[in-house]
Amino acid sequence: MTIRLIGYSASGPTLRVIICLKELGLPYELEPPASYQSLKDEDYIANKHPFGKMPVLFDAGLIDQFISYELSYYDPPLSKLVYQEKFAQKFFNKDPDPEVIKQAREELAKVLDVYEKLLEGKEYLNGEYSLADLVLCPATNYGYGAGHSDLWDNRPNVKNWWNRLCNRDANKKSFEEIKSFWENN
Amino acid sequence: MTIRLIGYSASGPTLRVIICLKELGLPYELEPPASYQSLKDEDYIANKHPFGKMPVLFDAGLIDQFISYELSYYDPPLSKLVYQEKFAQKFFNKDPDPEVIKQAREELAKVLDVYEKLLEGKEYLNGEYSLADLVLCPATNYGYGAGHSDLWDNRPNVKNWWNRLCNRDANKKSFEEIKSFWENN
Repeated sequence: MTIRLIGYSASGPTLRVIICLKELGLPYELEPPASYQSLKDEDYIANKHPFGKMPVLFDAGLIDQFISYELSYYDPPLSKLVYQEKFAQKFFNKDPDPEVIKQAREELAKVLDVYEKLLEGKEYLNGEYSLADLVLCPATNYGYGAGHSDLWDNRPNVKNWWNRLCNRDANKKSFEEIKSFWENN
Repeated sequence: MTIRLIGYSASGPTLRVIICLKELGLPYELEPPASYQSLKDEDYIANKHPFGKMPVLFDAGLIDQFISYELSYYDPPLSKLVYQEKFAQKFFNKDPDPEVIKQAREELAKVLDVYEKLLEGKEYLNGEYSLADLVLCPATNYGYGAGHSDLWDNRPNVKNWWNRLCNRDANKKSFEEIKSFWENN
């Protein structure tokens, strides 16, 4: 079976996949998108890439895809928010910057709209609990602690998913440890 | 065997590892560093983490570690450089910003100093060719094309490693394809 790859060969992330396929000697078919703008089409977002990006490899493990969404989209705005609210003052003696917080919230809201769709009809991102969910736990826990729980709670699928995660023993124990760290430092 | 983990439990990236170890029911011992400053000690950099960061998991696969260095340290300054030199004008009609280029070069030089040490006495990052090397190829190829080859060529281990990579069939073919893309677009 020929592997389908959506992307431009001149784009670094796509080229990385191409080199890998060549190293493995696997046949593939490159499908360049009609334009950068077309990545934002409803059809593309629904069927190809939920964040409207490339490359898309139709052979990839779903868990790996979810993990890459975390690094690329979920974590960056949430880290900014948590840094401003929890770390800036405590560790670096800086006041939170309301403009950075506002922008990070707006960015994160858009990301969580995508997760709301990704979680439709599912208990966990990949159906069963997996690393896809686990990698999101530390930052989400901090997001709640930083006073921005409304971002998750306003989205029913996301809210239920997070409650499910909070009830897992490993998370319960870990979050308790963090809580006592913050109370004692 | 108890797994050793260096980090602070209050740090998101460390907490992610902790939750994972708890989920798997694996015993571990958390070793908090003496201070943030101590992460920059010569001994820590030589024996724990070449970029002076945390967490460090003494059980992790070396290839995964190398891949995470790429995402965290190698790619960010190099992407800035390549964007300024290759993409800004061509696709976005913006002039390259000399200040951004200067800062990106300085940052990348420090990163490549670490790779120079990592490659000492080795043909490839993990000994044999692996994904650890492959993930670096697209951006490095662009870095050369963007007129900054001196950054690699001034470091003998890095230079030899890159020449070795350029001689691999998969890279040869891929880089030729990119070259003709740029000539025709």
